[in-house]
Amino acid sequence: MKLKIKFTAFVASSIDGKIAKDNKTFVDWTSKEDWDFFQKSLAKFDVVVVGHNTYKIYKKRLNKRNTIVFTSKATNLKTQGSVIFLNPRYVSILDLIRKTKYKKIAILGGPKVYAYFLENKMLNEIFVTIEPIIFTAGVSMLSGKKFKKYNFILRSIKRLNKKGTLLLKYKK
Amino acid sequence: MKLKIKFTAFVASSIDGKIAKDNKTFVDWTSKEDWDFFQKSLAKFDVVVVGHNTYKIYKKRLNKRNTIVFTSKATNLKTQGSVIFLNPRYVSILDLIRKTKYKKIAILGGPKVYAYFLENKMLNEIFVTIEPIIFTAGVSMLSGKKFKKYNFILRSIKRLNKKGTLLLKYKK
Repeated sequence: MKLKIKFTAFVASSIDGKIAKDNKTFVDWTSKEDWDFFQKSLAKFDVVVVGHNTYKIYKKRLNKRNTIVFTSKATNLKTQGSVIFLNPRYVSILDLIRKTKYKKIAILGGPKVYAYFLENKMLNEIFVTIEPIIFTAGVSMLSGKKFKKYNFILRSIKRLNKKGTLLLKYKK
Repeated sequence: MKLKIKFTAFVASSIDGKIAKDNKTFVDWTSKEDWDFFQKSLAKFDVVVVGHNTYKIYKKRLNKRNTIVFTSKATNLKTQGSVIFLNPRYVSILDLIRKTKYKKIAILGGPKVYAYFLENKMLNEIFVTIEPIIFTAGVSMLSGKKFKKYNFILRSIKRLNKKGTLLLKYKK
């Protein structure tokens, strides 16, 4: 039996859809309950995919995992320990995933990486954690090529704590 | 007994925190269930506040209500039927509200208007409807002066339909 490859995005957001102050700053405003969920979830995945900015911020942790880093600076695939760097313009991530036999892929952002998988029809489900905060500015959750309607279905709702951190699961 | 003035924002958003394609386009992607909730809710408010772009899009409907329109083009207050135009730089909205004896104020956006009330500590609660859609681009829910953490508490969660439109109520 051939197991299907499954792409799952994990996003932690404010009420107003912001995921970070800028593309260099560590996210320190998510709740402990979300962190616990996130760490427990990641244990079930074969590999994580991040953009180069996200990689730079969380390098130490990501170097310990099977990680694929999207970068616009390379043309050829480059491997460093458990980390693979690739430019999706030149190297097919799907070919790479098939070759490595990874089945469960966690997409951890940032905005362009989430949009890449959505626009290329490689996004099966999304876990969105909404912290009860408004930032009014910052980095938007997704940064796609154009305004387009991608429909999802809400599969589950979980309130993670008293102040109201929400964990939402959406499927394509 | 003096009744306190209460400011309530209503926001309809995509999963990725977008509220419109641009600042000229009518919103046609919200669910019937959200529309019903929104109309029923508005009946309980004394006045609605909108920005000039939002006013231009929904002029016909807003002209039938007590409406305050924020505009950067005027200096003095201007009245047209049930609609008051004012520039919050020159005219105090709080003074106006006190004079008119409005108690329940509905803030309907756009992004700068929401941010204005939040930044000026005139936002008591927010109803956020999240449609199970991702747009990847468009107008962000709030457009404030800088990245700042405004904390809220989630008061209620309601699933409005089968696909998973969510109605969230947050309090300051």
